[in-house]
Amino acid sequence: MSLETLSENRSFGGTQGVYRHRSEATGTDMTFGLFLPEHAQHGRVPVLWYLSGLTCTHENAMTKAAAQGWCAEAGIAIVFPDTSPRGEDVADDEAYDLGKGAGFYVNATQDPWKPHFRMWHYVVHELPELVGDTFAVDRDAMGITGHSMGGHGALTIAMTHPDRYRSVSAFAPIANPTESDWGRKQLTAYLGEDRDAWRAHDSTILMTERGYPGEVLIDQGGSDQFLDLLKPEALAHAMMARRQPGQFRMQPGYDHSYFFVQSFMADHVLWHAERLI
Amino acid sequence: MSLETLSENRSFGGTQGVYRHRSEATGTDMTFGLFLPEHAQHGRVPVLWYLSGLTCTHENAMTKAAAQGWCAEAGIAIVFPDTSPRGEDVADDEAYDLGKGAGFYVNATQDPWKPHFRMWHYVVHELPELVGDTFAVDRDAMGITGHSMGGHGALTIAMTHPDRYRSVSAFAPIANPTESDWGRKQLTAYLGEDRDAWRAHDSTILMTERGYPGEVLIDQGGSDQFLDLLKPEALAHAMMARRQPGQFRMQPGYDHSYFFVQSFMADHVLWHAERLI
Repeated sequence: MSLETLSENRSFGGTQGVYRHRSEATGTDMTFGLFLPEHAQHGRVPVLWYLSGLTCTHENAMTKAAAQGWCAEAGIAIVFPDTSPRGEDVADDEAYDLGKGAGFYVNATQDPWKPHFRMWHYVVHELPELVGDTFAVDRDAMGITGHSMGGHGALTIAMTHPDRYRSVSAFAPIANPTESDWGRKQLTAYLGEDRDAWRAHDSTILMTERGYPGEVLIDQGGSDQFLDLLKPEALAHAMMARRQPGQFRMQPGYDHSYFFVQSFMADHVLWHAERLI
Repeated sequence: MSLETLSENRSFGGTQGVYRHRSEATGTDMTFGLFLPEHAQHGRVPVLWYLSGLTCTHENAMTKAAAQGWCAEAGIAIVFPDTSPRGEDVADDEAYDLGKGAGFYVNATQDPWKPHFRMWHYVVHELPELVGDTFAVDRDAMGITGHSMGGHGALTIAMTHPDRYRSVSAFAPIANPTESDWGRKQLTAYLGEDRDAWRAHDSTILMTERGYPGEVLIDQGGSDQFLDLLKPEALAHAMMARRQPGQFRMQPGYDHSYFFVQSFMADHVLWHAERLI
């Protein structure tokens, strides 16, 4: 598979690259960011997947989350995928929370989304294969995290494929989308009216039904302007009812911004590093 | 003086604020970012001034330089001023490197710039007074740094007012503007044809003639795409010819981006903290 280098910048002794490739999953060109620490010059390194939230591209977290320094110190790579397919041929909606920038990490089964909105397959299968074949990362040492819609993606993916992801965390995840306006609308559009099809994409349901074999770390800002949509209480209840090992931390005063994400990035990178190295 | 709060986000236990105020120096409204660490709730804290480069507003470094975490740890505030006056009444040029976003930290004496382009006065006098009167920062413990055009500003300001700034550093500063296309054009426009008026705004000249009473830290990327314009060799020569205490570090592989700035931000914040606390 061919990969086009859009940019490479030295960062904390390693390289922050941006790459474009043709995706079979989405049928479009896709762009992602990858930070490789210096350690990758001497052998394969663990890799953390960072899934972004609504309206984001590969770029937001790459420039604003300040993850690279901690990843460099820990000796792990971090990947920043896009949040949806892009391009003129790709269906869209005028709302910010549906269509481009809002893939919700599902494989759409409904028109007009079906042809390109296959972000689950892209993030779980195609991109790890491409990154593992191209760069010095260890596909047997993968962790996953994300923010908001990306936290939803990280949790649902990790609970579905615990064999692939040895660690999981989330920042302010959309925690119970089947019961939220950040979820019902999108799951209806992408997966149809049958709510049974939604269940695989709700962290609270997955936590109740399966959990995760390792510890789970979740940070949520106490002054998040979207608390009503995120529903942290539902996921926290499911976690503790299950006796799921891990931590759900309510951080007083923090909102939904990257100032929040950046504030706790060190904790999350170290969390993954401890479990991947 | 009245101050309007545009936003406040919790960040690393402190607050990242954005504020707008009427400036007498520029005759316009001005916007700046200020990070206050938690320590500021218990008393005045030292304050680091971060001057940004061409095309930047107050926002670029505030979101991409990852300074807040280190400032929180050290217990110092950091201010992100804008790089020029803004507004419909303000003169501009279609080039990215003159006019709005390119104030060069001088007080313009030439038309059409003279009425509003007084960024030296704004940064050195008016804004520190406003910030000191409004927030829990210690105006007797100020340091200054910056990137590119802002590194130029930081160095020229610190060498002119060593009594006001107890520490100074710079990231990839425009080091010898009187001999560079990043400088001659702007100094001619703002200060006129008489090169004598330019001398107060050239770090290499100031370093040769006065130096700085403390140590100076400068980081420069070895793969910076603007090395020809920045002229680090001129300033390094002046520093070492003078036996100026400090460090000029050429960092191999790094370019001019915020990935470079972020990579060395911890060193710079600690540099200032050691001298301010």
